[in-house]
Amino acid sequence: MAMTVVGIMGPGEDATEKDKQLAYELGSLIAQEGWVLLTGGRAAGVMDAASRGAKSKGGLVVGILPASNTEGMSAAVDIPIVTAMHEARNNINVLSCRILFFIGMNPGTAAELALAGKARRPSILVAQNQHVIQFFSEICGDILKIAADAVAAIEIARQILRVSSSL
Amino acid sequence: MAMTVVGIMGPGEDATEKDKQLAYELGSLIAQEGWVLLTGGRAAGVMDAASRGAKSKGGLVVGILPASNTEGMSAAVDIPIVTAMHEARNNINVLSCRILFFIGMNPGTAAELALAGKARRPSILVAQNQHVIQFFSEICGDILKIAADAVAAIEIARQILRVSSSL
Amino acid sequence: MAMTVVGIMGPGEDATEKDKQLAYELGSLIAQEGWVLLTGGRAAGVMDAASRGAKSKGGLVVGILPASNTEGMSAAVDIPIVTAMHEARNNINVLSCRILFFIGMNPGTAAELALAGKARRPSILVAQNQHVIQFFSEICGDILKIAADAVAAIEIARQILRVSSSL
Amino acid sequence: MAMTVVGIMGPGEDATEKDKQLAYELGSLIAQEGWVLLTGGRAAGVMDAASRGAKSKGGLVVGILPASNTEGMSAAVDIPIVTAMHEARNNINVLSCRILFFIGMNPGTAAELALAGKARRPSILVAQNQHVIQFFSEICGDILKIAADAVAAIEIARQILRVSSSL
Repeated sequence: MAMTVVGIMGPGEDATEKDKQLAYELGSLIAQEGWVLLTGGRAAGVMDAASRGAKSKGGLVVGILPASNTEGMSAAVDIPIVTAMHEARNNINVLSCRILFFIGMNPGTAAELALAGKARRPSILVAQNQHVIQFFSEICGDILKIAADAVAAIEIARQILRVSSSL
Repeated sequence: MAMTVVGIMGPGEDATEKDKQLAYELGSLIAQEGWVLLTGGRAAGVMDAASRGAKSKGGLVVGILPASNTEGMSAAVDIPIVTAMHEARNNINVLSCRILFFIGMNPGTAAELALAGKARRPSILVAQNQHVIQFFSEICGDILKIAADAVAAIEIARQILRVSSSL
Repeated sequence: MAMTVVGIMGPGEDATEKDKQLAYELGSLIAQEGWVLLTGGRAAGVMDAASRGAKSKGGLVVGILPASNTEGMSAAVDIPIVTAMHEARNNINVLSCRILFFIGMNPGTAAELALAGKARRPSILVAQNQHVIQFFSEICGDILKIAADAVAAIEIARQILRVSSSL
Repeated sequence: MAMTVVGIMGPGEDATEKDKQLAYELGSLIAQEGWVLLTGGRAAGVMDAASRGAKSKGGLVVGILPASNTEGMSAAVDIPIVTAMHEARNNINVLSCRILFFIGMNPGTAAELALAGKARRPSILVAQNQHVIQFFSEICGDILKIAADAVAAIEIARQILRVSSSL
């Protein structure tokens, strides 16, 4: 049976310190659950912090890279998937995860969250502001879950996985 | 010199009657300007209405299709681009247009608008509600323009094209 | 009804003078048939020569570009499709054409010809050498047609279009 | 540091028994080297046999899937990457591997080998016929290596990895 792959999506260079701390914590909790972490793979922001967090607990990290090589890849990525398709890889990120966690917000992150809504992938907004929650609740409906912090997000993910047995 | 290609993005099967009427009108105005219309190409909702509007005034219509053939294509498409990459084609839609018009809202449309923000493509929200305007103003910044109707949208587009000479 | 779109595929920077002359001639004949020409869009080799040939007879030219902008685009492209997915765009080139013409050979061209075989798109080898004909005849079967020159290639294409009414 | 990912490419439903036996053996040898195996992920032909071979020795298997879900996936895949981009995923397969092994031949396999030539990825032809070797030697040049069987292929791969330290 395939491993349980979950994703953490969020801003790169424009991530806040708080985003990155949260991503690191969530990445480490994901590794402790025995889940594989999937991110956008770059050495920046939420992707990098989440990957390092997972790595710190011995987790396995898949990075879906935008460019045609591994330049600028997070050092915590174990398995680089080299797409050479830039933002079009967003859809791969979304489709390959059984659950997606969203930390922070920018255009790329919003695109991934919207695609998750389109693909009906369970998506957990972690510590997001009210405008984000309001807009995406309107368009994504019941695939959207709200968590105040990393621990609450993991608990929601566990419940989802309990009732959905595969991708 | 390449033709001026502009896009109309919006919901398919879940478009409202009002969305479709607006898309038809905007498509016809785009054709009257001599611009090429680009849409997602399917025989549904905003894409189809916009394409038929453009066609009604002798315009040229490019359809960027999701599947691996032309099944379900709008009859008003002149040039089908067959991508076989489903939602990943959103990024092609965005990058290929000098200006994008957004009518109606759903997850696919939100993904395209977010990608337009990422790629810094001028994007005109036509008759959108306040939550949409508020959320995307926060993440997309100054590429975002607001128009109350099709005529106002065309006027904004003309101004943008006057100062930007190519894609 | 959609226009008839046909493609000319072949090497870029590494095209020979003979490849480029043949591509120019074939592009001009395609335009005279009233068919839309689709190429890889760059200002190099077979793509550029074919596009200029089509343009010289008033044809319409679609360029499926590899990068995320129009830098390096052939000046003869009317409608740039900006994919930002580099070699992965090969499959779009193949799927979007009712007939494909192959002039010259290199790894990119071979990839497109193989994909045409996979998608069962009628493919005409124009003035190719015996190794090319032999290898692709083995893997592509009856979608493959052989033409000694541009005029013969057009005649074969006409026959194919006579019996296949759409993409 | 990222894991060493290598790929086995070859026909699906149209693979021969000999192709599948060879793929199984090569997959198991790859796992014994401690390398991660990457394939096209489907439960068919060379992909499936290679994945089962790797699994039989406790290896880790990444499957780059063509569709928008995991239907038809090989049961031996550990990490499914869901692309929804069909043949356009070929380029991801090629770019994500440090070394590619090619067993059997059909249009999809030829497209991947041609893309490997384009991307200059070391490619090992395993037990291929003379027409294949001849054609691809002409277009791919020195990235192409020839192996008579699985053991010889592994030995060539070891030598390549000794002198190239990363993707």
